[in-house]
Amino acid sequence: MRFLSDNAASVCPEIIDAVVAANVATDNAYDGDPWSQRLDDVFSAFFGTRCRVFAVSSGTAANSLALASLVPPFGAIVCHREAHIEVDECGAPEFFTGGAKLLLCEGEHAKLTPESIAAGTAAMRGDVHQVQIRALSITQATEYGTVYSPEEVQTLAGIAKRRGWRVHMDGARFANALVHLGCHPGDVTWRAGVDVLSFGAIKNGGMSAEALVFFDEALAAELPYRRKRAGQMPSKGRFNAAQLIAYVESGAWQRNAAAANDGAQRIAAAAGARLTHPVEANEVFVDLGTHGPALRGRGFNFYDWGAVGSGEARFVVSWDQREDEIAALVEALRALD
Amino acid sequence: MRFLSDNAASVCPEIIDAVVAANVATDNAYDGDPWSQRLDDVFSAFFGTRCRVFAVSSGTAANSLALASLVPPFGAIVCHREAHIEVDECGAPEFFTGGAKLLLCEGEHAKLTPESIAAGTAAMRGDVHQVQIRALSITQATEYGTVYSPEEVQTLAGIAKRRGWRVHMDGARFANALVHLGCHPGDVTWRAGVDVLSFGAIKNGGMSAEALVFFDEALAAELPYRRKRAGQMPSKGRFNAAQLIAYVESGAWQRNAAAANDGAQRIAAAAGARLTHPVEANEVFVDLGTHGPALRGRGFNFYDWGAVGSGEARFVVSWDQREDEIAALVEALRALD
Amino acid sequence: MRFLSDNAASVCPEIIDAVVAANVATDNAYDGDPWSQRLDDVFSAFFGTRCRVFAVSSGTAANSLALASLVPPFGAIVCHREAHIEVDECGAPEFFTGGAKLLLCEGEHAKLTPESIAAGTAAMRGDVHQVQIRALSITQATEYGTVYSPEEVQTLAGIAKRRGWRVHMDGARFANALVHLGCHPGDVTWRAGVDVLSFGAIKNGGMSAEALVFFDEALAAELPYRRKRAGQMPSKGRFNAAQLIAYVESGAWQRNAAAANDGAQRIAAAAGARLTHPVEANEVFVDLGTHGPALRGRGFNFYDWGAVGSGEARFVVSWDQREDEIAALVEALRALD
Amino acid sequence: MRFLSDNAASVCPEIIDAVVAANVATDNAYDGDPWSQRLDDVFSAFFGTRCRVFAVSSGTAANSLALASLVPPFGAIVCHREAHIEVDECGAPEFFTGGAKLLLCEGEHAKLTPESIAAGTAAMRGDVHQVQIRALSITQATEYGTVYSPEEVQTLAGIAKRRGWRVHMDGARFANALVHLGCHPGDVTWRAGVDVLSFGAIKNGGMSAEALVFFDEALAAELPYRRKRAGQMPSKGRFNAAQLIAYVESGAWQRNAAAANDGAQRIAAAAGARLTHPVEANEVFVDLGTHGPALRGRGFNFYDWGAVGSGEARFVVSWDQREDEIAALVEALRALD
Repeated sequence: MRFLSDNAASVCPEIIDAVVAANVATDNAYDGDPWSQRLDDVFSAFFGTRCRVFAVSSGTAANSLALASLVPPFGAIVCHREAHIEVDECGAPEFFTGGAKLLLCEGEHAKLTPESIAAGTAAMRGDVHQVQIRALSITQATEYGTVYSPEEVQTLAGIAKRRGWRVHMDGARFANALVHLGCHPGDVTWRAGVDVLSFGAIKNGGMSAEALVFFDEALAAELPYRRKRAGQMPSKGRFNAAQLIAYVESGAWQRNAAAANDGAQRIAAAAGARLTHPVEANEVFVDLGTHGPALRGRGFNFYDWGAVGSGEARFVVSWDQREDEIAALVEALRALD
Repeated sequence: MRFLSDNAASVCPEIIDAVVAANVATDNAYDGDPWSQRLDDVFSAFFGTRCRVFAVSSGTAANSLALASLVPPFGAIVCHREAHIEVDECGAPEFFTGGAKLLLCEGEHAKLTPESIAAGTAAMRGDVHQVQIRALSITQATEYGTVYSPEEVQTLAGIAKRRGWRVHMDGARFANALVHLGCHPGDVTWRAGVDVLSFGAIKNGGMSAEALVFFDEALAAELPYRRKRAGQMPSKGRFNAAQLIAYVESGAWQRNAAAANDGAQRIAAAAGARLTHPVEANEVFVDLGTHGPALRGRGFNFYDWGAVGSGEARFVVSWDQREDEIAALVEALRALD
Repeated sequence: MRFLSDNAASVCPEIIDAVVAANVATDNAYDGDPWSQRLDDVFSAFFGTRCRVFAVSSGTAANSLALASLVPPFGAIVCHREAHIEVDECGAPEFFTGGAKLLLCEGEHAKLTPESIAAGTAAMRGDVHQVQIRALSITQATEYGTVYSPEEVQTLAGIAKRRGWRVHMDGARFANALVHLGCHPGDVTWRAGVDVLSFGAIKNGGMSAEALVFFDEALAAELPYRRKRAGQMPSKGRFNAAQLIAYVESGAWQRNAAAANDGAQRIAAAAGARLTHPVEANEVFVDLGTHGPALRGRGFNFYDWGAVGSGEARFVVSWDQREDEIAALVEALRALD
Repeated sequence: MRFLSDNAASVCPEIIDAVVAANVATDNAYDGDPWSQRLDDVFSAFFGTRCRVFAVSSGTAANSLALASLVPPFGAIVCHREAHIEVDECGAPEFFTGGAKLLLCEGEHAKLTPESIAAGTAAMRGDVHQVQIRALSITQATEYGTVYSPEEVQTLAGIAKRRGWRVHMDGARFANALVHLGCHPGDVTWRAGVDVLSFGAIKNGGMSAEALVFFDEALAAELPYRRKRAGQMPSKGRFNAAQLIAYVESGAWQRNAAAANDGAQRIAAAAGARLTHPVEANEVFVDLGTHGPALRGRGFNFYDWGAVGSGEARFVVSWDQREDEIAALVEALRALD
């Protein structure tokens, strides 16, 4: 039973159908096709403000292109110590920015706080001997499946703005966060001070396209060149644009995220006091003690987490998770002494 | 009628079907799925030698990752003045290599020759004041739709090998070249001295995946890191791998290229003495004189080529080009005085 | 007799003395010392306008830092095919800019012209598939010892400005050009449209410091970080600053360049019809025919130039060139049949 | 009284004299002069093994070029959280390596230990999603003026070697460490497993040259190109080489370091229980409590250290520190209640 990650789940029918439907004969390569041409409008309507949108082939590409738009090579980006950009992208931000640094801050449940940012950046002197902080990157939902409220985003972005930093949001699981919050997409992004959003779709039923959303159009000026130069501008761009349009316009983003979040809540309820982080999106972190091997033996596939031997495990619920799998896990967790 | 480029054509049914078929529920992200795991074997069988294969999202990514595997940041790559890597990739090779240079050589019909390479590299002294040539990149079929024979590739690669350079082939239209040559895929690649091939599929009926093929496995050692770091390792890798497998195993590569080449031959015959380059793949370059606007007026879509006012035009025939479009163009060209 | 280059000549007494005089005990590291603090004022007085000045350790560093301030990684720089930045810096501009490209233009005697720039950039389409020209770099004096007049610089810079490019001047032999022109330093730089100047001192009697001069202070905003990050901000900065101040304020720049130019003129007169380029600075290019080996045999040290076997030779006169060496070369050239 | 840093101190007479003596007329630019040609031999004799040596213009350049020789762009370098390469070089290592990451480990008194390295690298999984550790960088003497013994270096280098990492030593204050240890220079470098050493001279009476020393000649193969490309290959290389030769051969390295270390010992004795780190080189870290402003008022110039308001101060003793200054500081510290 697959609880390893949502990043290998199936693609939802809305998106597969859109891909098939985009298979027309055309002479409009790159972003010249009608799908690509609609991207800005579709996302502007979704977010309730004018934005510039670019389809890219992975979350790593989205994050790295975003950061390269925000900081110079001698810049620095404030992020959580466990942020995906630090831990899981093989140095992509450093590659795309030309060697900027990530400044790592702490924070419970993978959430940054004003205090943790203050502590993590206290040693930065701002003189020529050090890289210059120019951006804050926050993850929504976080690496531990927790979610920043609009007020929390606003607070962190406010700190950034007062210090002259731009704000990036890594929204690999943005839909899961949005469903949890139940707020308007704009409330937790541009209205709260986010400049650029990596809008994830792949983990939530998408196939091969993520969206890079600029709420400040001026920041997007260089992006087309950086994207092309990174090999992220496919000639048949319509297939990626069509995926993103279907994801947003069909409401699949909401249905899929709701299904996954709901499954996670049921598992969380079963885990009870064993939870190591609040469950607000579709990830459940559980202290299994010594029961991990037994659960694996019964067919549950999941990652061990934390230090070796910690007994912590991560279960991720996918949008297409089978009901019987969730039920089985619920039962198994309840049965733990 | 669309003769602008083959890079916006429709996707052939074999590949669309493979994408749909790959939409299973799985827990194998990245390259862990059965499709990705088969890539090496499928291409090894195709080329008749053991090779390492990576799916990437664009030809620019394939070329740039290949070159970054072959040359250090202080390196140089010998290529034709009109090579795609020089003219059309917004500096992607420079980005991926960390600032290597392209050394531009001449050559009729966009083909390099021993003489043009000698002339183009004569000024390179090999001392510390200059970048160091470490690779030769040739395009098959070339930017003018001409094709290197196995002997020609062997000759150029031989020059490279004697000077300690590695050999890259940009095969954005590799299938068209192969169909023209009628030879085994190995004859014009590894047997002729090619180390790394950007194996194009998208222009020939593909969707969103190109293959990067290493014939020298040792050269591929760093590629997984460079690829991940470039945002070219999608989490649902099976969709890209499935496209490439279908393209190769179904024989679509051959059928599609044959259709496109055949159409080009018929147009070439109609163009007659107006041809400015031999037609060996699916591109037809024609001196239209002053007839360009009239042809456009009749609905033909194509690029003007060469210097402004030269009267030269490029017609590209796609794998899915409609019979009536080809016939119309043939007739229109025949009717030119 | 050393006519190989001016880049190994002795250091003039004004500069050596300044180095020795700067050897005080101080607690002001980096640019905090009184010499470094005076740099802006000294150069502002010299150029007759407010400028920002940075000492760096080589001409390559000056040029590359300048270009990195002017163009983004996806940018391009227009320069002459034989420019030092293209031919002799092992790809330093590509390294410092993060992979920008040099666009090579032709031009007799290594001088760019409006026509050669138009020809060399005609193929640039300005779309996202190509790097974007953002700067023009001209060399004063050129690689062939010729000199742009203020009007010529103005014309070229005017072209640049109209197209939105910034203007860099590689002044490795700027003093030689200035002495030839007899104009105010501002006439051929900021008044003519130059934004950033690599102000050479080392070839003209300097030791280990060149100056990077920004006439547009806004362009200099990022330079301190780029310079530090490139290892070009020495802790004992006063030794470099003192060299540059002595060079400018003592008039050594003028005396040294006048001596070298004068020697070159005498050699040029002796070479007569054998000259292959006008002699306007301190370099003399001569068609020696088959006499090269004989001249070497008599103790003259010089570079063969051009294609192998061309018979062309380059003689560079240094500021400290001995009178008897010049006389000997004059006589030897006169004696050629 | 200047206790801010040793990096602005005067230049010792041996080195100034060598600079003046190198001012000959020559035709040997770059590394072609007799001084540059002797560098390898002089350092090979000093270290008791064959080594390759390059003069560079700053410690930042030495460190960054060293690291770029050891790790690929997707690599990582293990170092102490307070290492100069992390804290004080404005991202130079990231620039020179093409975006490698520094992995920060803890350790009392700025010293790494097997345990701190194990802890700091425990989360690195070695898969394609993460940068790959390829080097360990240790600082000798450390940022807190402590010194690794040969055994300690051997232990850390042994860990590195077993894991396939190369070993870099940042020896900005190498002479101070060596004098403290009283061992052969080879004992704490190549015999202990160090591959590349940034051999500092500037802080210890030098002027504008540091040495980059490769104990493994194969690792130096690419360095000449990287150095040229970084603008670190001066045309009048003899002035830098002469400084380094004089520093090593005259024994100035030892005399200067002994003077500075000795002054530090006397100040340390006066500070007594207020010391926050052992004093083993020429830096003294003292808990001044609330006495800092009073000391400043009496003319002592020093850096506050640690968190704002911590009361900690750093006093650095230079090779040319005046006896009366040391005596005054000793007295002042003794007088603190």
